[in-house]
Amino acid sequence: MDKLGVWLIGARGSVATTAIVGAAAIRAGAASPQGCVSESPGFPGHLVPLTDLFFGGHDITETSLRKRAEQLGRAGVIPPDLPALLASDLDAADAEIRPGYVPGDGGRAAARLIDDIAGFRARHGPARVVVVNVSSTEPPVDSRPEFERLADLEERLAAGDDVLPPSSLYAYAAFHAGCGYVEFTPSTGPTLPALTELAAQQGVPYAGRDGKTGETLVKSALAPMFADRALRVRSWSGLNLLGGGDGATLADPAARSSKQLSKDQVVAKVLGGPVDGQTHIDYVPDLGEWKTAWDHVTFEGFLGVRMAMQFTWQGCDSALAAPLVLDLARLVARAHEKGRRGVLPELGYFFKSPLGTDEHALAAQYARLRAFAEELS
Amino acid sequence: MDKLGVWLIGARGSVATTAIVGAAAIRAGAASPQGCVSESPGFPGHLVPLTDLFFGGHDITETSLRKRAEQLGRAGVIPPDLPALLASDLDAADAEIRPGYVPGDGGRAAARLIDDIAGFRARHGPARVVVVNVSSTEPPVDSRPEFERLADLEERLAAGDDVLPPSSLYAYAAFHAGCGYVEFTPSTGPTLPALTELAAQQGVPYAGRDGKTGETLVKSALAPMFADRALRVRSWSGLNLLGGGDGATLADPAARSSKQLSKDQVVAKVLGGPVDGQTHIDYVPDLGEWKTAWDHVTFEGFLGVRMAMQFTWQGCDSALAAPLVLDLARLVARAHEKGRRGVLPELGYFFKSPLGTDEHALAAQYARLRAFAEELS
Amino acid sequence: MDKLGVWLIGARGSVATTAIVGAAAIRAGAASPQGCVSESPGFPGHLVPLTDLFFGGHDITETSLRKRAEQLGRAGVIPPDLPALLASDLDAADAEIRPGYVPGDGGRAAARLIDDIAGFRARHGPARVVVVNVSSTEPPVDSRPEFERLADLEERLAAGDDVLPPSSLYAYAAFHAGCGYVEFTPSTGPTLPALTELAAQQGVPYAGRDGKTGETLVKSALAPMFADRALRVRSWSGLNLLGGGDGATLADPAARSSKQLSKDQVVAKVLGGPVDGQTHIDYVPDLGEWKTAWDHVTFEGFLGVRMAMQFTWQGCDSALAAPLVLDLARLVARAHEKGRRGVLPELGYFFKSPLGTDEHALAAQYARLRAFAEELS
Amino acid sequence: MDKLGVWLIGARGSVATTAIVGAAAIRAGAASPQGCVSESPGFPGHLVPLTDLFFGGHDITETSLRKRAEQLGRAGVIPPDLPALLASDLDAADAEIRPGYVPGDGGRAAARLIDDIAGFRARHGPARVVVVNVSSTEPPVDSRPEFERLADLEERLAAGDDVLPPSSLYAYAAFHAGCGYVEFTPSTGPTLPALTELAAQQGVPYAGRDGKTGETLVKSALAPMFADRALRVRSWSGLNLLGGGDGATLADPAARSSKQLSKDQVVAKVLGGPVDGQTHIDYVPDLGEWKTAWDHVTFEGFLGVRMAMQFTWQGCDSALAAPLVLDLARLVARAHEKGRRGVLPELGYFFKSPLGTDEHALAAQYARLRAFAEELS
Repeated sequence: MDKLGVWLIGARGSVATTAIVGAAAIRAGAASPQGCVSESPGFPGHLVPLTDLFFGGHDITETSLRKRAEQLGRAGVIPPDLPALLASDLDAADAEIRPGYVPGDGGRAAARLIDDIAGFRARHGPARVVVVNVSSTEPPVDSRPEFERLADLEERLAAGDDVLPPSSLYAYAAFHAGCGYVEFTPSTGPTLPALTELAAQQGVPYAGRDGKTGETLVKSALAPMFADRALRVRSWSGLNLLGGGDGATLADPAARSSKQLSKDQVVAKVLGGPVDGQTHIDYVPDLGEWKTAWDHVTFEGFLGVRMAMQFTWQGCDSALAAPLVLDLARLVARAHEKGRRGVLPELGYFFKSPLGTDEHALAAQYARLRAFAEELS
Repeated sequence: MDKLGVWLIGARGSVATTAIVGAAAIRAGAASPQGCVSESPGFPGHLVPLTDLFFGGHDITETSLRKRAEQLGRAGVIPPDLPALLASDLDAADAEIRPGYVPGDGGRAAARLIDDIAGFRARHGPARVVVVNVSSTEPPVDSRPEFERLADLEERLAAGDDVLPPSSLYAYAAFHAGCGYVEFTPSTGPTLPALTELAAQQGVPYAGRDGKTGETLVKSALAPMFADRALRVRSWSGLNLLGGGDGATLADPAARSSKQLSKDQVVAKVLGGPVDGQTHIDYVPDLGEWKTAWDHVTFEGFLGVRMAMQFTWQGCDSALAAPLVLDLARLVARAHEKGRRGVLPELGYFFKSPLGTDEHALAAQYARLRAFAEELS
Repeated sequence: MDKLGVWLIGARGSVATTAIVGAAAIRAGAASPQGCVSESPGFPGHLVPLTDLFFGGHDITETSLRKRAEQLGRAGVIPPDLPALLASDLDAADAEIRPGYVPGDGGRAAARLIDDIAGFRARHGPARVVVVNVSSTEPPVDSRPEFERLADLEERLAAGDDVLPPSSLYAYAAFHAGCGYVEFTPSTGPTLPALTELAAQQGVPYAGRDGKTGETLVKSALAPMFADRALRVRSWSGLNLLGGGDGATLADPAARSSKQLSKDQVVAKVLGGPVDGQTHIDYVPDLGEWKTAWDHVTFEGFLGVRMAMQFTWQGCDSALAAPLVLDLARLVARAHEKGRRGVLPELGYFFKSPLGTDEHALAAQYARLRAFAEELS
Repeated sequence: MDKLGVWLIGARGSVATTAIVGAAAIRAGAASPQGCVSESPGFPGHLVPLTDLFFGGHDITETSLRKRAEQLGRAGVIPPDLPALLASDLDAADAEIRPGYVPGDGGRAAARLIDDIAGFRARHGPARVVVVNVSSTEPPVDSRPEFERLADLEERLAAGDDVLPPSSLYAYAAFHAGCGYVEFTPSTGPTLPALTELAAQQGVPYAGRDGKTGETLVKSALAPMFADRALRVRSWSGLNLLGGGDGATLADPAARSSKQLSKDQVVAKVLGGPVDGQTHIDYVPDLGEWKTAWDHVTFEGFLGVRMAMQFTWQGCDSALAAPLVLDLARLVARAHEKGRRGVLPELGYFFKSPLGTDEHALAAQYARLRAFAEELS
C-alpha cells in the first residue's frame, strides 16, 4: 500500500501539531495509538498504517512545529520529552508547511494553494493526499449566487474575486488537486453546492463537519438513552469554558455562532424536536488547552415525574481531536482508493454536524462506521 | 388478545404501587404511557394493551394500596390527585393481594404461593399471568447441593425444609403455576440450576435481573462511548445516595453487597476488564423516594493525556422502574404465547445483571430488544 | 410594641405571596420560622414579633393572592394545604393591594402611590410601615440631571414628567409617606442622589439591594475562603438556569444586565480585583419556581499548582427570599424606631449589591448584622 | 530574629518535600509565597522570614529528597525545573534526615529521637526548632492507663515498653527536646494527657490536628452559611477519591477511620447536631497526587421547602498542605518565643479537628487567627 500524505490546514495549530507529534511518536515506538478509533483491536478497513503517514499543510503563522510542540509539552497536552525526541520528524513536516491563505486575494490564491498541495504529493509520490481543515472556526457565511454553480464560481475566481471563505477555498483547492477533504471545523468548507459539484467532477470524497470530541460526544451518547427509554427531555442547557486558541477565536460572537449552531442540533435531532435551553460558550484564558463543560438536563418520566441529570466534562480538545484526524485521513484515503466520491455520510460518527446524514445517535453512528470500514476492507 | 394478569411480589411497595396506579391512570385517560419503552411510537411486539392489565400479588405488609398511593402522592412520586380518582382500581388490586412468604416455613409455603397465583389467574381467566418480583433486595445466597437439581430441591421442599431464599421460592411457585417470571431485584430468584430446569420443564420464560433504572443506565450508555473511541478508562467511582424503603434495605451491608456486585460489573464488562474505583451505596433517609448518584470517571487519551468526567443523576426510582415492570410483563407474556421458554437474553436492556447474555452496552441491548419485539409481532 | 405593616411592591408575585403565606402560617402555628435569620435562637434586636405583621402592597396584576398561593402550592414552593387553611389572612392582605404603577403617568402617579401607603398605615394605625420592593427586575437606567437634586426632581414630577423608573418612584412614594424602604431587586430604587436627599429629609432609613439568596450567597461564603488562604482565584464562571416569572423577566437582555452586574461584583470585591469568567443567566421555563446554578472556579496554590472547584445550587428562590423580606422589614422598622435615617450598610448581609458598604464577605457581613441587631435591642 | 528549624516527621513524603522545595524556591526568588496564609499582605505576627527556615526530619524511607522532588515535578505538584535548580538546598535538608521510628523499640527509640532533634538544633544554633508531623495517618489508638499520667508513661518507656503510637512518641521527643510541635495528621500525636502534662512541664506549645486543606475546608466555609441563614441541613454526604501515598494509607480501614472521624465532626459541630450522611474515602491510584471530593447537601428552607447543593473539589493535597506547614512552624515558633505553652487553640483555622477549641466555622477561626497573630507582633 502507498504512503499517505496528510495536508493540514492550520498545520501549526494545537490539533495539527498534536497529530504530527503523535504519528511520529507511534512510528518511533514511543506511544500507543490510544484514542485512534481505527486502531482498536479488530477494527476493519485495511487502512494505511499509522507509520506510513507524512505531513504538510498551510498556516498563516510561522512559529516552528518544534516550538509549538514544546509549548504543548509545557501545557500537558503531550509528554514534555517528545519534542526533542521527535525533532527530525517535526522539522520534516515543518519544511512542508506553506503560507496560509489570507483573505483578500482569493482569486489568485486558489492556484497557489493547488500548487502547494500538488507539489507536496509529487515530492513524496507515488502517494495519496488527504486535506484536513483544523484551522480556526470561521463565522457563518451568507449565501451568494455564485455558490450555487461551479461554472459561476470558477468565473468569479478567474476574475480575481475574493468570494469564498477560507475553508471553502481550501476545499476548492483540495478537490482541484484531486484530494479528499475533511472539514474538521464548523466552517463552511465543502458544503457549497458548487463545491459538491466539483468533488463529483473530480471524483474525490469528503467528510465533515466539526469534530465531535467532548461535550457533544457525551450528548450524542446520552440523548438516545432518554429517547429509547421514553423519558421526555424538557430542557438541556450547557456552558462550555474554553481556554487556548479555540477559546480566543470563539470569544468572537460571529465565530461562536457557527459553533453553537453545530452543538445545539444534536439533542433536537435525536429527540425529534427542540427542547428548552441553550449551549453557552465562554473564553476563559486560564484554562489553557483544557476545556470544561457542564450540561444540565431536566426530563420527565412516568406519570409526569420530573428528574434531572448533569455532567461535567474536563477534556483536552487537541488530544481528543488529533487521533480522529489520523482516523479520518486514513478512512477518506481508503474510500478514495475504493472509488467513493462526494460526501461520506458513513463518517458521521466523528462530527457534530455530520454531512449527508441526519443520524446523531452515537451508537448508531458507530455501527455505521464499522459497517463502512468492513466494506472498505 | 386475552387480558394479562401481573402478579407482583412486593405488591404494596413503591414500585408495585406506582405501576398499578400508572396502569389505572392510563386506562382512565388520566396519564400518558411516558416512560414505557414498549409504547414508543412504532415499537413493535403486538403486546397486550396497557388497558388490559390487571394486578394482584404477594406482600408481607398490610397497608392498603390506596394508603400507599396517597403516601406516594405526598412524596411527589405520583400526582397527588390520582389515588382518589383511581380508588376503585386500587381496591380491586388490593383485593388480589395475598400474604407474602415469611422465611421459616418454605416447604409448606410453596404450595400456598402456587395456589395464590393459580387462583388469581382462574378468577380472571382466560388470562395469562406474569409474576414480577419488585420486593426488597435479599443478601447473596451461599450455594447448596439441592440448588443444582430440581429433583433434589423438590425432595427438600417436600420434607418441609426452608432451603430457598424468598425470591427463588416465588420463582419456583411462578413456574409451577405455569407463569413467566421477571426478577426485577438483584436477588437470587430464578438463577439456580434447579429452577432453570423447572422453567424448561414447565415451558415458561423468565428474565432478569435487577432493573436498570438510574446510575447504571447512564453507565451503560457512557462506557461504550469510551470503549469505541479508544479512550482508556482508568477509574470509575460512584456514590449512590438513597432514601426510602430501598435505601433502608440497602443500609444492611449484606443486601447492599448484592446490589453493588450488580452495579460494578457493567463497566468492566463493556470495557473488557476491571478498572479502579468502587460504587458506594448510602442510605440517606431525607431523600425519601429520590436518589442522587454521583459518578467520577478518569480516562486517558492520545499520548497518555489524562481527562475526567463526572455526572450526577437525580431520579425517582419507583417512577423509573414502574413503566419497565409494565413493559416486561407484556414482553414476557408475549414471548410465552409465542412458545419461548427459559431465559430471555433479549430483555437484557432492562437489567443491570442481564441473564443469559454478557452484553451490557445500552444501544446494543436496545437494538436486540427491538429485533426481539419485531420477532414477537 | 406596635404592629408592623409590610407594603410589598409586586404584592402578588411569588416572593410576596410566599412571605404573606409564611407569616400567616407562622401566626397560625402551622409553620416554624425556619429561614428567618432574625428568628434564630439568641438573635438580638427586639423586633416586632412575626405574628404582628400585616400586609398590603402594589401590583399591576389582578390574580388574587389565594389563587397565587394555590399556584405556589402546586409548584411545591409552599405546602399545598396552606392556601385553604389561611384563606382569611390571604383575603385580608388582598384587600390591601392597590393597582401598581404603569409607566406613562409618573408625575401624577406619585401622589396616588403615597396616598395608598399612607391610607394603609392609617387604617391599621398606630403602626409603622416598611415598603419592600419584590417586583420584577428593571433594566439599568441612564443618569439624568434631575436625579442629582431633590428640588429638580420634584419640579419635574410636579410638571407631570415621567422621569423615574418604577422602583425609584416607589422609593420616592415610600419616603414621602414616612416609611422605610427595602430594595430587594437589582433595580435603581432609592439609589439616586435626589432620593438619598429625600430619605435624609424625611428621616427614614432604607436598605438594599438585590436579595442574596442563592448562587451569590454561596460565592460570598467561598470567595473569602480562597482569599484568606492566599489561594489565587484565576477564573470564576457560572450559569444560572431560572424558570418562573423571574426567569421570564431576565430573558430580556436589558433586565438581565442589571442582574449580571449585581452578581459579578461579589467575587471581584472580595478578591480585590477582577478575575476571568462571566455569570450567565438563562431562562428555562421547565424549571418553574426552581433555579439551578453551576459555578466553576479555577485557582492557583503553592508554587503555581492549578486546582479547581465547582458547585451546583438547586434552590427555590421565593422560599429563600420570603423569610429575608420578613427579616428586613422588621430590622428596618426597628432601625427607624431607633432614629436611624438614610442607608443602612449593616444590612449588607442580605444583598448582592449592598448599599453603603463594600463588604461582600458573608461571615463579615453576618458579624456586622449581629452587632447591629445588638445595638437595636 | 533567629533562624527557624523545621523538623519534619515524614520528611521524605510529598507534603514535606513540597514544603522544603517551596521554601527553597521562595528563598531563591523562583516562587512567590502564594498559599502561605501568613504571607498575605498585612498579615501580622512578626514571624521568622520564610527565607530563614532550614529543614531536617525523620523518615523511614531512604529515597533522596532530590529524587522525591523529581517525582513531584513529574506529577505536576511542583514545577519540573525546580529540583535541579534547588539541588543544593535539597541535599542540605537531606543530610539532616534521620531514620524514622519503626514500632517495636519504642522504649529505647525515644532517647534517640530526642538526640536527633537536639543535634539538629545544636548544629544550626542558636535557633528555635518546631517539629511538624506530616507522616502517614495512624489508626486510632485504644486508651491505656499509662497515657493518663506522665510519670506512668515515663516508667513504661524506661522499661523499654513500646506503648506509644509513633506520632505520640515523636511528640514526646519534641517536647523533651524543648520544641513546639504541630500534629498535621489525624493521628494521636500530643493529645494524650501524659503528653499535655509534658508540654506544660517543658514550657512548649503545640497545635493540631489534621490539616484542613480541601473538602473539609469547604465544608467549614459552607456550614456556617446554612446555620446563619436558618436553613436546616438535612443531610451531608461525601465521597473522597484519593490517589498517592495518602490514598494508599487510607485504603486501610483502620487508618481511614481516623480520617473519617476527623472529617465528619465539622458539620455537626457548626450546625449544633448530627445530620444524616457519611463521608466516604476511596483509594483510586490513578489520581496520583490529586484528590477529587464530591459533597452533596440537602437542606430545608422556609415552610419546609427542600433544596440541595453539591460541590466538587479537585485539589492537590501536598500543594495545599505545604504552605500551611510553613505557616504553622513560624506561628508556633513565635508563640513559643512569646512564652506560650500547651495547646494553641488559636490555630484551629488550620485543622479539621482543632485542639483546644470547638470552633469549626472557618471565618470565625480566621478572625481568631488574625487576632492571635496581632498579639504575637
